[in-house]
Amino acid sequence: MDKLHKNSPDQQNEKGDLYIIKIGGNVIDNSENLHNFLKDFTALKGNKILVHGGGKVATQLSETLGIEPKMVEGRRITDIETLRVVTMVYGGLINKNVVAQLQKFGTNAIGLTGADGNFIRTKKRPVKTIDYGFVGDIDETSIDNTNIKRLMDGGFTPVFCAITHDGDGQLLNTNADTIASALAVSLAKLYNTTLIYCFEKSGVLKDINDEDSLITDIGPQYYEELKKQQIINSGMLPKLDNAFTAITCGVKAVIIGHANNLGLLNENKKFGTRLSKNA
Amino acid sequence: MDKLHKNSPDQQNEKGDLYIIKIGGNVIDNSENLHNFLKDFTALKGNKILVHGGGKVATQLSETLGIEPKMVEGRRITDIETLRVVTMVYGGLINKNVVAQLQKFGTNAIGLTGADGNFIRTKKRPVKTIDYGFVGDIDETSIDNTNIKRLMDGGFTPVFCAITHDGDGQLLNTNADTIASALAVSLAKLYNTTLIYCFEKSGVLKDINDEDSLITDIGPQYYEELKKQQIINSGMLPKLDNAFTAITCGVKAVIIGHANNLGLLNENKKFGTRLSKNA
Repeated sequence: MDKLHKNSPDQQNEKGDLYIIKIGGNVIDNSENLHNFLKDFTALKGNKILVHGGGKVATQLSETLGIEPKMVEGRRITDIETLRVVTMVYGGLINKNVVAQLQKFGTNAIGLTGADGNFIRTKKRPVKTIDYGFVGDIDETSIDNTNIKRLMDGGFTPVFCAITHDGDGQLLNTNADTIASALAVSLAKLYNTTLIYCFEKSGVLKDINDEDSLITDIGPQYYEELKKQQIINSGMLPKLDNAFTAITCGVKAVIIGHANNLGLLNENKKFGTRLSKNA
Repeated sequence: MDKLHKNSPDQQNEKGDLYIIKIGGNVIDNSENLHNFLKDFTALKGNKILVHGGGKVATQLSETLGIEPKMVEGRRITDIETLRVVTMVYGGLINKNVVAQLQKFGTNAIGLTGADGNFIRTKKRPVKTIDYGFVGDIDETSIDNTNIKRLMDGGFTPVFCAITHDGDGQLLNTNADTIASALAVSLAKLYNTTLIYCFEKSGVLKDINDEDSLITDIGPQYYEELKKQQIINSGMLPKLDNAFTAITCGVKAVIIGHANNLGLLNENKKFGTRLSKNA
């Protein structure tokens, strides 16, 4: 590749950097971990977006209200009562408390569902063999990246919960992992985007019971090898497949790591498992 | 007053117009009325902000959860359990459903508490004889009008629920009427601001039982007369006192009218009771 056509660091920087960070219920449920995570999130320089999942509170509230979890063929159904609960808990209780804490630390956060700003418009999952209820599926037209950029250009840090809308007045329950990766793919057109999944392990492990067996970097070729050798835990495979799809679609890197370790990024230290084209 | 110093319509327009509209629980609780109101709100041209109160849902949820309303000397107390409920119901369920409906009609709404964007920072009410619990009082430093303008300049329509924060991580319950008038006073520095209170009557009535006895315009002098003659219902007096304070602080006009009649504004017809300096 000649110098003219090479994507130089300067050209990359013209787009600006963006971190999209997803935290799951396990971080939400532990107030001390959440507190530390939000502090580290605040210390992270530049554009960033937080996506959060649910946690135990929604399940507890459903139980207290006598709403029985509806399962069909082992899959959870979002009936109208459950949608009300997740709208209250994800969109209200969790989201607004996260925002208030981020404000305390100095992040100018705005808490959002996909209905706000029409940022994430999904389609109610069509009924085939199972009616999943009020669940929204994301496709390539779902994310309004221009409007999200406009919000960030205003100096605001978006905090998304796992609720979207259909554009016709209906809120829909949507997987937080999927929201994070769809945001990353769409915003990669406008930013040098790194997608970070924070969970309760230090990253992709060779031995799931040994936190010291962390694999720090995985490229597409090494990933194929790891799959062939069946080294990676089967539960991790769909996450990694999604991650490499995101990378193929322009996301610079996907990092999978422990929520408690996000601070390492601020020290320019290695954090979790980094998946990228060039690893 | 000479021509140079007169505040001409052109000079006023340089600031841009803004409507701040508050709806109460009675509009929220009736889905058909709410639907029609949000349609009329969408049809209103220019910058606008919606502030909504609670409604019956929070009370119902509290009852279902076995949270007894705490009253001291006839005043409602917001304990931590009640704060959780209003955060879920006002900030989640009501706010996000209102946003989803506004998006359906074409308003690019963003649902907010005062914590979002640090837009409304209040102080927990100090304990004197009564501890009101997690209630936030607004003062003249509470509203960040520059940041709210920045959000509106991005093309977004703010929808505020009656929750604020203290800037130190704590959400606080705050009266929706007060939020609306504080927003109006603060934003009057940046916009030609009209504050509209929508409720279940057609406006200020000479006879509270006769909707045809609507007073269409009240200026400060006429207001004094009406008070002397004890024509206005005593429950309406604090609202009107607040309204005239807002006008003294630069708000162009305050309108008090029926939520069902907001559409009249779009037809440039008289709507409710208009309080202004010059009436």
